Amino acid sequence: MIVAATLDGKIAKNSHHLSSWTCKEDKIFLRNMLNKGDCVVVGNNTYQTSLEFLKKRNCVVFTTSVKTLKAVNGSCLYVNPKNVNIEKLLKDRNCQQINILGGQQVYSWFLKNNLIDEIYLTIEPIVFGFGLSLFKETLKTQKNFKLKSVKKFNSQGSLLLHYTRV
Amino acid sequence: MIVAATLDGKIAKNSHHLSSWTCKEDKIFLRNMLNKGDCVVVGNNTYQTSLEFLKKRNCVVFTTSVKTLKAVNGSCLYVNPKNVNIEKLLKDRNCQQINILGGQQVYSWFLKNNLIDEIYLTIEPIVFGFGLSLFKETLKTQKNFKLKSVKKFNSQGSLLLHYTRV
Repeated sequence: MIVAATLDGKIAKNSHHLSSWTCKEDKIFLRNMLNKGDCVVVGNNTYQTSLEFLKKRNCVVFTTSVKTLKAVNGSCLYVNPKNVNIEKLLKDRNCQQINILGGQQVYSWFLKNNLIDEIYLTIEPIVFGFGLSLFKETLKTQKNFKLKSVKKFNSQGSLLLHYTRV
Repeated sequence: MIVAATLDGKIAKNSHHLSSWTCKEDKIFLRNMLNKGDCVVVGNNTYQTSLEFLKKRNCVVFTTSVKTLKAVNGSCLYVNPKNVNIEKLLKDRNCQQINILGGQQVYSWFLKNNLIDEIYLTIEPIVFGFGLSLFKETLKTQKNFKLKSVKKFNSQGSLLLHYTRV
């Protein structure tokens, strides 16, 4: 799971808000992670708003617009997680490093299904005061993680925290 | 502002949830801050649930149960922030280091009124997936801060982040 949040734990002001507020070091980090990874999992909103960035990458896009799955082009697969075994799908496609990029619904799906091994959390030194949290409010779960490393990205104090599951 | 949150930005599961989930190092840090400070500002919920911890300290307690203000005992002052000039009150009482301990409504009041000079944010390495954010969702504001320091409290990776206003 790769996510950028404000210091008050918001990933966006609303579901159409782009991540233009994150620092350039975070964007470089994200690109490097995607270059190393085998597959990106995103929701369709996130995919559409990041199309230029994602269209050449191996993407699994969560959507309810298909019943099971549909290959859109050579690199993008639309999948309805309600009717497809996602773990098996990703294993069959031989995906080892799977980068979960959001948005909130996709993060929540992976948390609920206990499939988050690592969290890369960038914390930008700003406050929105409102907006979307990392996970959906309806998710009644508690999970423990362990902090592996802290990296300071820049002089303003954007931080990259790396957690692994306990 | 002193606050402890989960890595998904939640300060409590609900308004009656105590901060029993924070690490002992954070509790020691909090006690040291209160010992150094001149005054604590809290909401009445937080005050009542932390009475043992707060009753001997100089407390300003936000509440709508009084019209303006009412001294409850030698150390506690009930104040209705709608009808009292809080900045003047705290200046008149010669408070320099004012520790704002929450809950969410009190944090939001200070953010909205642009009165937060510093944030001490403890991030525990757990996820609630739901609960109360640092600030009320109705608050439409954006503020920039600057990270001054990062301290790792323990081997699990509880972190103390210190921010100042820009």
